[in-house]
Amino acid sequence: MNKILEQAVAKGKKMTALGRTATYIPELGHVNKDYLGVCVCTSDGQYYKCGDADVRFTIQSISKVISLAVALERCGYERTFDRVGMEPSGDSFDSLVKLDLTSDYPSNPMINSGAIAIASHLASEVSFENMLKFTRHLCMDDEITLNERVFHSEMGHISRNKAIAYLLESKGILENSVEESLKLYVQMCSLNVTAASLAGFGLVLASDGVNPVTEERLLHSWVVQIVKTIMLTCGMYDGSGKFAVEVGVPSKSGVGGGLLSVVDKRMGIGIFGPSLDEKGNSIGGQHILRELSAKMKLHMFADNVPEF
Amino acid sequence: MNKILEQAVAKGKKMTALGRTATYIPELGHVNKDYLGVCVCTSDGQYYKCGDADVRFTIQSISKVISLAVALERCGYERTFDRVGMEPSGDSFDSLVKLDLTSDYPSNPMINSGAIAIASHLASEVSFENMLKFTRHLCMDDEITLNERVFHSEMGHISRNKAIAYLLESKGILENSVEESLKLYVQMCSLNVTAASLAGFGLVLASDGVNPVTEERLLHSWVVQIVKTIMLTCGMYDGSGKFAVEVGVPSKSGVGGGLLSVVDKRMGIGIFGPSLDEKGNSIGGQHILRELSAKMKLHMFADNVPEF
Amino acid sequence: MNKILEQAVAKGKKMTALGRTATYIPELGHVNKDYLGVCVCTSDGQYYKCGDADVRFTIQSISKVISLAVALERCGYERTFDRVGMEPSGDSFDSLVKLDLTSDYPSNPMINSGAIAIASHLASEVSFENMLKFTRHLCMDDEITLNERVFHSEMGHISRNKAIAYLLESKGILENSVEESLKLYVQMCSLNVTAASLAGFGLVLASDGVNPVTEERLLHSWVVQIVKTIMLTCGMYDGSGKFAVEVGVPSKSGVGGGLLSVVDKRMGIGIFGPSLDEKGNSIGGQHILRELSAKMKLHMFADNVPEF
Amino acid sequence: MNKILEQAVAKGKKMTALGRTATYIPELGHVNKDYLGVCVCTSDGQYYKCGDADVRFTIQSISKVISLAVALERCGYERTFDRVGMEPSGDSFDSLVKLDLTSDYPSNPMINSGAIAIASHLASEVSFENMLKFTRHLCMDDEITLNERVFHSEMGHISRNKAIAYLLESKGILENSVEESLKLYVQMCSLNVTAASLAGFGLVLASDGVNPVTEERLLHSWVVQIVKTIMLTCGMYDGSGKFAVEVGVPSKSGVGGGLLSVVDKRMGIGIFGPSLDEKGNSIGGQHILRELSAKMKLHMFADNVPEF
Repeated sequence: MNKILEQAVAKGKKMTALGRTATYIPELGHVNKDYLGVCVCTSDGQYYKCGDADVRFTIQSISKVISLAVALERCGYERTFDRVGMEPSGDSFDSLVKLDLTSDYPSNPMINSGAIAIASHLASEVSFENMLKFTRHLCMDDEITLNERVFHSEMGHISRNKAIAYLLESKGILENSVEESLKLYVQMCSLNVTAASLAGFGLVLASDGVNPVTEERLLHSWVVQIVKTIMLTCGMYDGSGKFAVEVGVPSKSGVGGGLLSVVDKRMGIGIFGPSLDEKGNSIGGQHILRELSAKMKLHMFADNVPEF
Repeated sequence: MNKILEQAVAKGKKMTALGRTATYIPELGHVNKDYLGVCVCTSDGQYYKCGDADVRFTIQSISKVISLAVALERCGYERTFDRVGMEPSGDSFDSLVKLDLTSDYPSNPMINSGAIAIASHLASEVSFENMLKFTRHLCMDDEITLNERVFHSEMGHISRNKAIAYLLESKGILENSVEESLKLYVQMCSLNVTAASLAGFGLVLASDGVNPVTEERLLHSWVVQIVKTIMLTCGMYDGSGKFAVEVGVPSKSGVGGGLLSVVDKRMGIGIFGPSLDEKGNSIGGQHILRELSAKMKLHMFADNVPEF
Repeated sequence: MNKILEQAVAKGKKMTALGRTATYIPELGHVNKDYLGVCVCTSDGQYYKCGDADVRFTIQSISKVISLAVALERCGYERTFDRVGMEPSGDSFDSLVKLDLTSDYPSNPMINSGAIAIASHLASEVSFENMLKFTRHLCMDDEITLNERVFHSEMGHISRNKAIAYLLESKGILENSVEESLKLYVQMCSLNVTAASLAGFGLVLASDGVNPVTEERLLHSWVVQIVKTIMLTCGMYDGSGKFAVEVGVPSKSGVGGGLLSVVDKRMGIGIFGPSLDEKGNSIGGQHILRELSAKMKLHMFADNVPEF
Repeated sequence: MNKILEQAVAKGKKMTALGRTATYIPELGHVNKDYLGVCVCTSDGQYYKCGDADVRFTIQSISKVISLAVALERCGYERTFDRVGMEPSGDSFDSLVKLDLTSDYPSNPMINSGAIAIASHLASEVSFENMLKFTRHLCMDDEITLNERVFHSEMGHISRNKAIAYLLESKGILENSVEESLKLYVQMCSLNVTAASLAGFGLVLASDGVNPVTEERLLHSWVVQIVKTIMLTCGMYDGSGKFAVEVGVPSKSGVGGGLLSVVDKRMGIGIFGPSLDEKGNSIGGQHILRELSAKMKLHMFADNVPEF
C-alpha cells in the first residue's frame, strides 16, 4: 500500500504546476500550491499516509457532505428534499442560471445553492458547536477547529453566495434568514481538516455509517446510502460524470484542495492538493485517485475485486 | 383632443379586467385595478385629462428614466455606460440569467440589474432629497412625495433585487454598497406621481430637455436624445419591440401602473392603469396608446404627420 | 422471486394511468399504455417473468447503450470521447441549448445529440446488419428484428433530430453525413425487443461482458465498466440523479416504454411499460424497480447484500 | 456633402484593419477587407458617392428587410407575425437557444431563424425571379443579379441554418419544406448589390415606400413603417441598441459588408465595408454612420434638424 501511495503522489506532484489555488477567497490564494498528500484508512482502522497528509486546510465544499448527512438525520428525507433536487446540474457550482430560468429549487445539495438551502434547514435544528463536535466524530479527529482567518476572509468576499441566498429567499426556499444560513454555511466550509481526517470520514461512510474501530453507529444506513449516491453523481461539480467513469468511487472535492473518496466496504481516502483545475477540483488529487483506482481496482464496477 | 382621449379611455376600460395588479410588492396589490386615466401635455403647455389622471400612484420603473438622465448629467456618457449596456435583453426585467451566463454587465438601464447599477453610481453623486427635488422639476409637479407605505413594503420584499445587487457586487459593478444602492433605487421607485406628472415629464423630454413654459433647460440635449432612444428600444420590458411597431413612441412603464410616452417635439403623455399584463405593462395604458397613436399619427415613422 | 415480481407489477399497474405513451412518433402513440411486464435474468441464466414480458416493442433510447458499447469496442476510448462528453446535461434528452450555448460537444452519449454523434462514428465502422446481429447476441434473443413501421414513422417525424444533427455537423462533430448518421441511429431505435431480451442484455452487462451461459465474452471488461457508469449517471435522462438515489442500479430507459437495469454481478432486469412520465421514463417501470430494489437490496450502496 | 463623405470614409478606412471578413462562407472570406465606400441618395434623387460605392458584393442579411416587406405585402400583418416575433433577441443572429428554451417562435425577422420562417411563407407566394425583379425596383438598380459562386458556397456551408430550419419545422413554423425555404433564403442573400443600390433602396424607405423620382409607390405606407421600426430595434444584431443610441437611424447590416440606413424623409445611405466586428457588423461602415449622423444631425431624436 505505501508503495502504491508513494508512486501515486509522485505522479500527482508533476501536475500541480498546471493548476492554481482558489483566489476568490483571498486566504485560500495564499496557500502553497505544491502541497500534495494522501491518506488511506482501511476497514481495520489502519492509516496509510504519504506526503502532506497531516497539513491542516479548510474543508470547504466537502462540508456539504456532512451537512447533507446531518440534514437527513435531523429533518428526514421528505423535508430535506422538499426544496432541493438530486440531479447533476450540468453547470458550474456557483451558477444561478438554472435556478433562475428553469427550476424552482436548487439542482442538488452539492452545489452552492443547494448547500445554502440545506444550511438554512440545519440552522433551525443544530448549533454550529454541535456540527463541529459531530464533524470531529465523523472524521475521528478531535483537533478540527474553525479557521478564523479563512472564515473572516470568506465572509468578506461572499457577494456571489449572498446573491444565491437571496434568490433562494425570493423563491421561498430558505427556512432561516440569509444571514444565519450563510453564517452556518461558511462556518462549516472553514473547518480545518487534514487528509487523514477525510480518510477517517471516508471510512465511516464506507462502513455504512459505523466507526469500525469503536463500532459506534454515527449515521443511519439509509442516510449513508443516499449521501454516497449523491457524491457519486454530483460530488465533483460538472466533472462528476467523467470522474465516475475514470475513478468510479463516491467523492467530494473542495476548493481548499481537499478530496474525500469512499471505497464502499473497503476504505476511506483523503487527499490534500490545493492546485485546482478550472472546475475547482484538485489536479494532483484526481491524478492520485485515477492511479489508486487502477492499481487497487477501486471502481464500483470493476471486475474481480480482490477480497478484503 | 378631449374626445379622442375619452374614446381611448373607454376602449381601454374594457380591457382592465384581463390583467392584475403587481402582487410581489404587497402594497401595490391593494390598488383598485379598475383605475384608468390619461393626461396629454402639448407643446404649448396645455394639459388635457381624462379619467383618473390626478390619482397618485408610485412611479416604480419609470423612475429608471429619471435616474438614467441624472446619471448621464452627473457622471457623463463614458462612466455611465462603463458597466451597463444599451441592448434589449430579450429577457424579463428581473432576470439574472444573462448577467450570470453570458455577460459581464447588465444589458441596459431599464431592467432592474441595470437600474441598480445606475443607482449605485448616483448614490455617490446626489442625495435622495435632491433627486426628489429634481423629479418635481422634471414633472412640473411640486406635490410629488415619497410614498412611505410602498417604500417600506418594497424594502420588505426585496430578496430578488438583493440577489441581483449582490451578483452585481460580485462582478465589481457597484460603486456603492448594496444597501445604499438599493435604498436609493427603492426610494426613487416609491415616488407618488399622477398621470399628469408623467405627461409633464414627457413634454420636457419631447421638448429636448427644456420646460417649454418657463423655457428653463433641465437636461442637456444629448442626454435627452440618449434617454429617448433607450426608452424606445428597452422601455417596455420584453414587449418593447412590438410596442415600438404598434405605437412607435419612446415609452416607459412601471409596475405601479404608470406609463410615460414622449411624442418627440409634440407632446408628453402620462397614463395610470394598474391592471398589468404578464410582462408587467399596463393593459389599459397600452390600448390607449395604440388608439392615440393611430388617431393622431404619433408613430415616429408615420407619414404626413400633421403640423404642430 | 416470482412473488416479488408479481407484487411489484401489481403496484406498478396502478400507476400506468398517470402517464402517456410517446406521441412525437405517431406509431408509438398507438401502443396500449396499460402494458406492463418485467423479466429478471439471474446469474445462473434463469429467467423470471411477470406480466407482459414477451410483448415486442421498440428499444428506442436503450439502443444508445449498445451503440456506445460497440463504439468503444471499435473506435476505442480516445476516439469515442474525443467529441462527446460524459457529464449529465441537466437538460431534457432532446435539448439543443447546452450544445449551442456553452459547449462544443454533446454532454454525453445517452442524450440524442451524443447518440447521433456516436452513430456517425459507427456508420464508418459497422453495417446495420452487423449491429442487429450483435444486438441479438447481447440480448440472447435471435428474434430481434427491425420494426419497419416504427422506423418509417420515426424517419417521417425527425425534424428535431435533424436539427440536432445539423448543429453537430456545423460544429464538425459528425464523422459521416447527417443522413447516414440518422439512418443508423433510427434503425437502432427501431429494433423490436421484449422485456426478456433486455433482461438478457442486462445479465451480460452484470457479468462483466460475458454471456454466463455460453461463457462467451461479448464485450471487453473496460467497456462494460464505462457503459454501466454512464448508465448510472445519465441513463434516466434528467431524472438520473433521483433514480440513482432511489433505485441505485445502472439503468437506461427508452420512450418505447423499455427499461434496462443491471444489478452488478447479480442479475439483469428488463421492463416494458409504455406509459411515460414527463421526462420520458416508464412510470410503471420505475415503480417496479423501486420495489425490487428495496425488497432485494439491489442498490449499489446497500449494506449487507445477500450472497449470490 | 461630398466633403463630409470623404472625411467619413477617411476616418472609417483607419478602422478596417481591426476587423475581418466573414469566413463561415468561404467565398466571403476571399473579399479584400480594405474596401470601403458610401453612397447617399437624397430625397431629390441625387446620388453622392465616395470610395468603393460601385463595387458589387452580396447583400446577405440586408435581404431580410426586403423579404419582410414582401411578406407583409403578400401575407399581411397577421399571418406574417403569427409565428415570428418582433422583439430583439439579445442573442447572436444565428443562435438557437431562445428558440429551443423559452420561446415557441423566432424572436424577430432580422435574425436567421425569423428570416427563414419568413422565407418559408414567401416560398408559397412568390418566385425567386419575381423577388429579384422587385429587389431591382426597390434598389433602383437593374443590374442586380444572383452571385452564383456565393450562392453555391453558402449552400455548401449551410449546416447551422439547416439546424435552425429543422428546429423551426419541428415546431410547426415552416409553411414550406426546409429545402425550399432555405433555397429562397440563400438566393436572396446572394444578390449582388452596390452601396449605391442600397442607398436607392434606403431612399424608397425614407420616402414612405414611394420611388421619389418616378413617384411610383412600391410598398404600402404601413409596411414601410413596420420595416423601419424593426430595422431600428433589431437591424444591427445584438449591437442594435448601442447603434440606435449612437447613430439613431433604422439600419440593417449584412455579413457581406453591406449597411443600409434610412434617414426618414431625408435620405437613403448605402455602405460597403467587408471588415466586420465580432457581432458581424461592418466596422468601417459603423464609423462612417456615426460621423454622418453627428455632422448632419441624422439621429431620429436630434434637436433642430435642418429643413429639407
